[in-house]
Amino acid sequence: MREVHRALAEWLEPLGTRISVDAVGNFRAVYAGQTADAPRLLIGSHLDTVPNAGAFDGILGVMLAVALIEGLNGRRLPYAIEIVGFSEEEGVRFRVPFIGSRALVGAIDEELLETQDPQGITVRRAIKEFGLNPSEISQARVSQNACGYLEFHIEQGPVLEKLNSPLAVVEAIAGQSRLDVQFVGRSNHAGTTPMELRFDAMAGAAEWIVAVEQAAKKVEGMVATVGSVQTKPGAGNVIAGEAELTLDVRHSDDNVRTSAVKGFMEEADEIAQERGLSVSWVGRLNQPSVPMSPFLIHEVEKAMVKTRCRAHRMVSGAGHDAMVLAEEIPSAMIFLRTPGGISHDPAESVLAGDVAQAIECGLHLLDQLASTDSFLKGTWRA
Amino acid sequence: MREVHRALAEWLEPLGTRISVDAVGNFRAVYAGQTADAPRLLIGSHLDTVPNAGAFDGILGVMLAVALIEGLNGRRLPYAIEIVGFSEEEGVRFRVPFIGSRALVGAIDEELLETQDPQGITVRRAIKEFGLNPSEISQARVSQNACGYLEFHIEQGPVLEKLNSPLAVVEAIAGQSRLDVQFVGRSNHAGTTPMELRFDAMAGAAEWIVAVEQAAKKVEGMVATVGSVQTKPGAGNVIAGEAELTLDVRHSDDNVRTSAVKGFMEEADEIAQERGLSVSWVGRLNQPSVPMSPFLIHEVEKAMVKTRCRAHRMVSGAGHDAMVLAEEIPSAMIFLRTPGGISHDPAESVLAGDVAQAIECGLHLLDQLASTDSFLKGTWRA
Repeated sequence: MREVHRALAEWLEPLGTRISVDAVGNFRAVYAGQTADAPRLLIGSHLDTVPNAGAFDGILGVMLAVALIEGLNGRRLPYAIEIVGFSEEEGVRFRVPFIGSRALVGAIDEELLETQDPQGITVRRAIKEFGLNPSEISQARVSQNACGYLEFHIEQGPVLEKLNSPLAVVEAIAGQSRLDVQFVGRSNHAGTTPMELRFDAMAGAAEWIVAVEQAAKKVEGMVATVGSVQTKPGAGNVIAGEAELTLDVRHSDDNVRTSAVKGFMEEADEIAQERGLSVSWVGRLNQPSVPMSPFLIHEVEKAMVKTRCRAHRMVSGAGHDAMVLAEEIPSAMIFLRTPGGISHDPAESVLAGDVAQAIECGLHLLDQLASTDSFLKGTWRA
Repeated sequence: MREVHRALAEWLEPLGTRISVDAVGNFRAVYAGQTADAPRLLIGSHLDTVPNAGAFDGILGVMLAVALIEGLNGRRLPYAIEIVGFSEEEGVRFRVPFIGSRALVGAIDEELLETQDPQGITVRRAIKEFGLNPSEISQARVSQNACGYLEFHIEQGPVLEKLNSPLAVVEAIAGQSRLDVQFVGRSNHAGTTPMELRFDAMAGAAEWIVAVEQAAKKVEGMVATVGSVQTKPGAGNVIAGEAELTLDVRHSDDNVRTSAVKGFMEEADEIAQERGLSVSWVGRLNQPSVPMSPFLIHEVEKAMVKTRCRAHRMVSGAGHDAMVLAEEIPSAMIFLRTPGGISHDPAESVLAGDVAQAIECGLHLLDQLASTDSFLKGTWRA
């Protein structure tokens, strides 16, 4: 991470930015506006990624911010630009995502600071060992004059490739439900228990997995996933007495999502009842959908059209730092086509032409904002 | 095991038996017949069981043999009885079942003797450390004059309880197919991959599990089980790129079984093809059905009727030492009702009344055989 910070600084200092690293390890570089009291647009993404990842998740969004500053050729705008390279978006080390962006909205509490990694090292200690001061985290908050947040990110999905489009503007981050589901039947000998006298937890779970998939397909924009299945005792010659599953459901409309989850669990109950099984579940996450700023969406669309891109709107199925920033300041995201939809994998890639179009689109957007009085005066936020 | 052998010896020596432990650790006790050259009926079961097991699996069959000798009250029959308490039926330690009974049919080879337990101790060394001589294993073979094998065993399933019957005669040990099956799709982000662009290995596997269950239900006497399912990567927010399953199929008719397995795998292929997945499988076991001796089945049925039991015939879905012995000598099995079908569990039980009926049935059988010339002369085997 230190080397990433150093590389970014080497690019950004000559471009006339003021560089710092805040107390949760976010890289920050301010490109001043025409006046000292100018409003400030944040542009950024995260610098971390997952193990065995590719080269573009997160970091591409920071590099595009660098490219935009570079594209200004020293020109100062009526607003400042702050580049943010967020730390710890993925949550790999502490199982808590968005630590960097949380600090910008004042959402780092004592509990989070005491969270331990698998080696027992707390967030607080990790911050200290990196040479930062955890008691200064409150200073990481977005400045009073911050007026917007823009994030470029690879789509990490197959939609834009399917549409043959380089870019999309994100209209919302989908809400998420995550549940742990357990079917319980009776573990019995696979040879001596006739089919009609079985209470096979896995067979019931399988029926439900198919039902969830079929039901989700019928709802526009919904995704539902059973990604993990575990059988107990899990032996080939023993009927599964228990099947433990995860359920992940996402949709941009929270009502659609929560009523779908309700329907899935009613279906689980029905399947269990018919089979003499029991089923129970625990909600692990119920995260509302986060809309992006309508004003910024509209401006991005205009910029996309100027870039000769179809102004495709889409919902992000994944969480992003923009979801956290949107709590505090109007936010927008621009997705770049992800070949094969492949991400979090060494094969993750982008097309150079798409990146060029993203830069062009970003520069159009910066110009548009520079000439929008309501943006500069902050009245657009009302 | 030494204590079990000692306890058995303490019961059996006063009953006039000659006791030994053969070179694979089988307990053997011969109750001589009326003449030195009398044919010999073997009665037994196994003395080992699984970890965390109950008190009846295996050992009850040996105890019933003891009870039959006791029931003879010193009376000698025109044939000898050899009680066998088999070692290592379950295969817990070396992952190879039936080591004890294999020795009786000459089926212990060098490869088996070199098989290691998880600590790296070979079967050969384990035999030596128990104080036995592996080079004497060939002497463990059934005697030339052995004319039959009878095994009492708990059913380990729910059928007799359902029928409200104490006993059943086993007509065959079902043949078994075991396969490892792998569905492969594409591991993708659960949030960013729309339902229609997924290659979800687990959803395909689930559809197949349901199809296998439904198809197996339609075939009389068939059981088919997917007991173990594993998803990869197995994270709640990642579509499963791989699903690894076990399939266990059993039936008394080998043609029915193998054609069912063929059908299941064709179904897997179809499901995979429709979903853009691939599926592959490896056969792990293809064990033919083993019929029990028609003569002995008939005699057991007659004895059951004398005991006022319904002469219920059934197929054993589980393997037993009788399956191994049947390679060499005509064999029969009598199942005892297993409350709740619960076995390999501390809650495993039998009803005292059922055990009493098993003893009565066994004594009727011994008497019948004593007066059956074809049995005594060995001509019934032809």
